[in-house]
Amino acid sequence: MDAIEQLLAIEQIKALKARYFRCMDTKDWAGLEAVFTADLHADFREGTDPPNPQAVIEGAKPYLEMLSPILADITTVHHGHMPEIAITSPTTATGIWAMEDKLWVKPGAPVPYSFLHGYGHYHETYRKEADGWKIATVRLTRLRIDVA
Amino acid sequence: MDAIEQLLAIEQIKALKARYFRCMDTKDWAGLEAVFTADLHADFREGTDPPNPQAVIEGAKPYLEMLSPILADITTVHHGHMPEIAITSPTTATGIWAMEDKLWVKPGAPVPYSFLHGYGHYHETYRKEADGWKIATVRLTRLRIDVA
Amino acid sequence: MDAIEQLLAIEQIKALKARYFRCMDTKDWAGLEAVFTADLHADFREGTDPPNPQAVIEGAKPYLEMLSPILADITTVHHGHMPEIAITSPTTATGIWAMEDKLWVKPGAPVPYSFLHGYGHYHETYRKEADGWKIATVRLTRLRIDVA
Repeated sequence: MDAIEQLLAIEQIKALKARYFRCMDTKDWAGLEAVFTADLHADFREGTDPPNPQAVIEGAKPYLEMLSPILADITTVHHGHMPEIAITSPTTATGIWAMEDKLWVKPGAPVPYSFLHGYGHYHETYRKEADGWKIATVRLTRLRIDVA
Repeated sequence: MDAIEQLLAIEQIKALKARYFRCMDTKDWAGLEAVFTADLHADFREGTDPPNPQAVIEGAKPYLEMLSPILADITTVHHGHMPEIAITSPTTATGIWAMEDKLWVKPGAPVPYSFLHGYGHYHETYRKEADGWKIATVRLTRLRIDVA
Repeated sequence: MDAIEQLLAIEQIKALKARYFRCMDTKDWAGLEAVFTADLHADFREGTDPPNPQAVIEGAKPYLEMLSPILADITTVHHGHMPEIAITSPTTATGIWAMEDKLWVKPGAPVPYSFLHGYGHYHETYRKEADGWKIATVRLTRLRIDVA
């Protein structure tokens, strides 16, 4: 790939991750599923405090089926910062993003806290499919989590 | 436009929005007015809690004349994240930005709170004029607002 | 430099600053030193409240030797936003970044607070060396600092 193709791919992956955050926080579940490859591998074991050894998910559809009812009664704000994107081939790439998330939980939601505020990094790989770049794998590491 | 021209325009619009935030928070009112088209249409009805049905402004100059005295005694921090920019013609573009703002209000400032912390998205359009890209329209939607 | 070379340099400088933040917050001191020129000039006098007139550092190695023991018992989160990068020659550039930092201090750490939350801007210059772009000078200005 030449420099222009690499720069275009980097911009497309940044916009892809922006859709991830926007669809997550506006609860656009169809839009969120569309940012992932069907065979998504997601490792959110460090996402919570204490870590949840079960939080390894295979597949975009199962991930959304698990996530959407949990977030139904939670207002979320996820922000991403400072990407480090590397295009590793015309159809593959890697990325690291700094992140911060806040969750305000309504009574009855199936999580053991009423507020969560976390900081960390997403470590991701991307794959280019017929309709554009997708998030193929994601692993969240944490710098700190506060819960109340 | 070819790929290079589109990438250049996207970078210029990102830097334009960066000037918007920096001029806002450093109270550089002349610099802030310069990021807008003269015929700016700004819809900040969802900016406050409760929403303010009056907060629709026409024109960069009237906006600054309204805004600058309000913010004189308010320390503000506005941060933007995760842009989704689309170049729709050589002189027009659209953008969505995640955002977070904090306002610390000194006694006497003309707002009904002493602290505001908000989260949401800017939905914008841009127009390229003789001296570069400008924000032509902006509408703020909110995920959450906390006031104290 | 043509448009492609300028866009490549801007993306490389954004990724450089991303490494700065990630190495800082993950305490990767060798990685952090590598983002600076050996003759780094850093002005963090406004970094603290009250300002510290001594916080002007010359040299990446002395900076790391000063910083790393201070941060050993402090969890830090630094986020950067909204860059304004200007390529001023094939080997020089300037940048402004909005920033926010949080420091959670463990007992015994050599700072006079247990928590710091700051907001401001980095004003930087960059130099391209044999192994890529580096941060040559940095000055931090503040919009607000809260300590507890």
